[in-house]
Amino acid sequence: MATSQKLLSLGTKIVAVGRNYAAHAKELGNAVPKEPVLFLKPTSSYLENGGTIEVPPPLESLDHEVELAVVISQKARDVPESSAMDYVGGYALALDMTAREIQASAKSAGLPWTIAKGQDTFTPIGSVLPKSAVPDPDNLELWLKVDGETRQKGSTADMIFKIPFLVSHISSIMTLFEGDVILTGTPKGVGPVKAGQRITAGITGILDVHFNVEKRQKTRS
Amino acid sequence: MATSQKLLSLGTKIVAVGRNYAAHAKELGNAVPKEPVLFLKPTSSYLENGGTIEVPPPLESLDHEVELAVVISQKARDVPESSAMDYVGGYALALDMTAREIQASAKSAGLPWTIAKGQDTFTPIGSVLPKSAVPDPDNLELWLKVDGETRQKGSTADMIFKIPFLVSHISSIMTLFEGDVILTGTPKGVGPVKAGQRITAGITGILDVHFNVEKRQKTRS
Ligand SMILES: [Mg+2]
Ligand SMILES: [Mg+2]
Ligand SMILES: [Mg+2]
Repeated sequence: MATSQKLLSLGTKIVAVGRNYAAHAKELGNAVPKEPVLFLKPTSSYLENGGTIEVPPPLESLDHEVELAVVISQKARDVPESSAMDYVGGYALALDMTAREIQASAKSAGLPWTIAKGQDTFTPIGSVLPKSAVPDPDNLELWLKVDGETRQKGSTADMIFKIPFLVSHISSIMTLFEGDVILTGTPKGVGPVKAGQRITAGITGILDVHFNVEKRQKTRS
Repeated sequence: MATSQKLLSLGTKIVAVGRNYAAHAKELGNAVPKEPVLFLKPTSSYLENGGTIEVPPPLESLDHEVELAVVISQKARDVPESSAMDYVGGYALALDMTAREIQASAKSAGLPWTIAKGQDTFTPIGSVLPKSAVPDPDNLELWLKVDGETRQKGSTADMIFKIPFLVSHISSIMTLFEGDVILTGTPKGVGPVKAGQRITAGITGILDVHFNVEKRQKTRS
């Protein structure tokens, strides 16, 4: 296995889970799912800790979703739940930035969420913690503040589908490779951030990250 | 730039365009889009020429969609249409295999297409032709047969959004990297294939590919 820091650069996909906390599903008016809602984000959407999240005009804001990222350590295909944790190499704190208006029109038109979820800087992510540094991933407090004010605080204990199930389930649909990432969903409290604001977020007692938010400057002619 | 054969292994994403041929949009009862419908497929869904497309139970069939794949040669962000072709390294013939029933329920529930489009073997793809071997990509005949019977035949001349526009537009949403692939949509004639059938497909006068179709054998416990 690669060192935890190198893992993200090896990955080729981000598999994100939607509606994995009942209270968040409810706040957006969605039913609690019977099986995981999955979507893909491109690795081109990563943004390192300390970077600037870009809001693409004409959008005025993006929604923040704080999530626990699970980083895969080795090729996983049809992995049973009982050994799924052997394929986890580490964890990170990530934000699943979302253009909520674009997602809402995509949803009502039956269209994919790619433009709402996949733009550059839409997946801010901190450094990867080795698995040994996170003894109990099912009992982590995730928090997010905008300009110092708490917006999200929740526990991974409230995830509907837990990490071993997610790794096993996703690996039954598509092969996961070293460095691939699963975003495990967000607790309640999602909401907009705009240019000039600052996001701080963390896993209580373990680490924190920070990102500025600015309007995207297009260089396109 | 890497040799054309090596390009696919370097790529980290497949950006697929939906409804890019008016006659195909119509056959599925969809409106012709005002801007490209985009979705992501993981590179884990690639299948080399000659391989076996796997139909995951309980599905009985998958739909075939023959498409021209555009392979990116260098990092592209906010590329103007006028220079977009400088970022194209080659072309390939690909199939965008689709679990149509899963896609239909996802569409009506406002959910992503990932499970319908992203499973292993759902992106059969031939070898990459260097750009020089394809002087007129906007005028290629694509064809697909199932057990020798023609199912799809169409010209890339009928694409609603042409290659330079697609490269430019997608690069304004997300950075494209060397080896990334754009699937440019399918002409009309999509339909089911099942276990035991054989797909042949090609670009008339340039190349052809073939794939068997079998039921997926799960090894999962
Ligand atoms: Mg998608
Ligand atoms: Mg999310
Ligand atoms: Mg297609």
